[in-house]
Amino acid sequence: MNEFDLIRQYFQQTDTERADVALGIGDDCALLQPLAHHHLAVTTDTMVDGVHFDERLTPADLAYKLVAVNLSDLAAMGAVPCWVSLALTLPSSDQTWLSEFGQALAHQLRHYQVALVGGDTTRGPLTLSLTAQGQVPAGQGLTRSGAAVGDVILVSGHLGDAALALNQHKLTPLTASQCARVEARLFRPTPRVELGLTLRQLASACIDISDGLSADLNHILERSSKALGGANASMSTVSLGACIDADKLPVSAEAVSVLGEQGAAANALNGGDDYELCFTVPATRLNEVIAAGKKANTPVTVIGEIVADGGLQTYYLGQAVDWQAQGYLHFSD
Amino acid sequence: MNEFDLIRQYFQQTDTERADVALGIGDDCALLQPLAHHHLAVTTDTMVDGVHFDERLTPADLAYKLVAVNLSDLAAMGAVPCWVSLALTLPSSDQTWLSEFGQALAHQLRHYQVALVGGDTTRGPLTLSLTAQGQVPAGQGLTRSGAAVGDVILVSGHLGDAALALNQHKLTPLTASQCARVEARLFRPTPRVELGLTLRQLASACIDISDGLSADLNHILERSSKALGGANASMSTVSLGACIDADKLPVSAEAVSVLGEQGAAANALNGGDDYELCFTVPATRLNEVIAAGKKANTPVTVIGEIVADGGLQTYYLGQAVDWQAQGYLHFSD
Repeated sequence: MNEFDLIRQYFQQTDTERADVALGIGDDCALLQPLAHHHLAVTTDTMVDGVHFDERLTPADLAYKLVAVNLSDLAAMGAVPCWVSLALTLPSSDQTWLSEFGQALAHQLRHYQVALVGGDTTRGPLTLSLTAQGQVPAGQGLTRSGAAVGDVILVSGHLGDAALALNQHKLTPLTASQCARVEARLFRPTPRVELGLTLRQLASACIDISDGLSADLNHILERSSKALGGANASMSTVSLGACIDADKLPVSAEAVSVLGEQGAAANALNGGDDYELCFTVPATRLNEVIAAGKKANTPVTVIGEIVADGGLQTYYLGQAVDWQAQGYLHFSD
Repeated sequence: MNEFDLIRQYFQQTDTERADVALGIGDDCALLQPLAHHHLAVTTDTMVDGVHFDERLTPADLAYKLVAVNLSDLAAMGAVPCWVSLALTLPSSDQTWLSEFGQALAHQLRHYQVALVGGDTTRGPLTLSLTAQGQVPAGQGLTRSGAAVGDVILVSGHLGDAALALNQHKLTPLTASQCARVEARLFRPTPRVELGLTLRQLASACIDISDGLSADLNHILERSSKALGGANASMSTVSLGACIDADKLPVSAEAVSVLGEQGAAANALNGGDDYELCFTVPATRLNEVIAAGKKANTPVTVIGEIVADGGLQTYYLGQAVDWQAQGYLHFSD
């Protein structure tokens, strides 16, 4: 069995048919027909064995997660997911692994009407990298850089379960079904694709929460400050802040039962891997955002407000707290 | 130093400016403006330490090669290279490595007017994966599937030096400068971008030679046979063949001095990693192809002809030879 047989056998199951794929897997390149008057949104996310996942994740979980983390980036831009390319590095051509992974990948891609258009299969330490492409009407893409003073800050879903599930020993107080619910948030996150689409021309800034709410909200503050200040502005002269009511952060009953209410809030603030959206909106349009969340069948929660300066400021029941605002940094020591 | 700092510091040097990059590195996705009436050509190639390269390759070589192998796929489709996304997995945040790699990447991308629009930097065993995108007028993309009986088969450049350089001990008979010339073909191949563009609406089929001429020409035969037979044709009823004059394969003086004339021909037929183009053209248009090669400043050589059946048939000075027609198969045992 060689590389080409592998790809044919396992990845031809990913049979999402799209009229805009002029030429799919099997040539030097795929040929795709993009929409007129649209921007392509392009993102790449890599998952490395032992770094981004452990042996608890099945091949099917890995396929689900790989698609989810990439589609989550498209969601944060308000883009419709269209096509993906897979760079898969495997220690051996393990047919069971490939079959389980391939089936789950096909299922997940079909769910989002996304076509696998190419990639590369190589031998080496288990590494999965996906490049996903979506499309958004030109000028309507959501970015990190449009937040303004007075904007309301919201998040989708609930936060912190993925971070909680990272350390299996923390889950011991939970029942098996509670444990499975928490782990599902780490193993199979839900990309908020529908919500991202409804937030177009509504949210002033948007990001997906992968490094942790505090780290990712800081990205919004940095990029929006820079945009306000213009290209030549020094970061020190123009700097937005954010006031977060940590007691309002949406958390699960499981997280509260393991960490307590305050612990669950701190975990929601700083944990990573949630793949929820954090976004800002002018206060006058809050009702529209609530309606957008309902339309997308996705809970949205107001957690704070953009302010003129001071960086990220966290309050718990009205008291300022200094919880370490560090997200998950891949190379931090 | 964390992931974000790394990316900013080293990859902001890749400063190719393109008006069609509406939003570059630094948000959840890049936003790109594709051309109207064009197809996107998308390809992904991965290089794994110890599998696709060894310690002889410097960080700068790796950057050159990574770009080359991906742009070679775009060249084989006749696409103009536009944008790349980099998935880089590194054992540690080695600043010297990153600096050398980043500078060479920037240099190579600038040379082709290609913008780095995003990617992911992760910790793990050294693995480099690039997704490259180009554009080609809709309907003008070169494919593997248009070869017909009587078409002339050509290759660009010369073949076999990369395969020769794979085994360092084979290079001992060469002088230092000869050795460097041969190794350059493995470490820093030249993607035939210009030639690919001139072959649009001229070549009937095209592929880049990565697995070896014999294996890659077989891909043309398979895909073109299938295209001739229609979707429902069995492979056994319609099957093109190719007659190759192995003595006409373009080889280097270095390869001949190490392997002898016949050995150099066999090595050119079966070796991999050349990243030259192999393409077919109706015999009536051969003069145009010769002119195209001159225009692209790239040598092109007639090596054989497409025939009605019999698969790949190799002749050396008029005698049929049965040199093992195996390309480099990543998972073959």
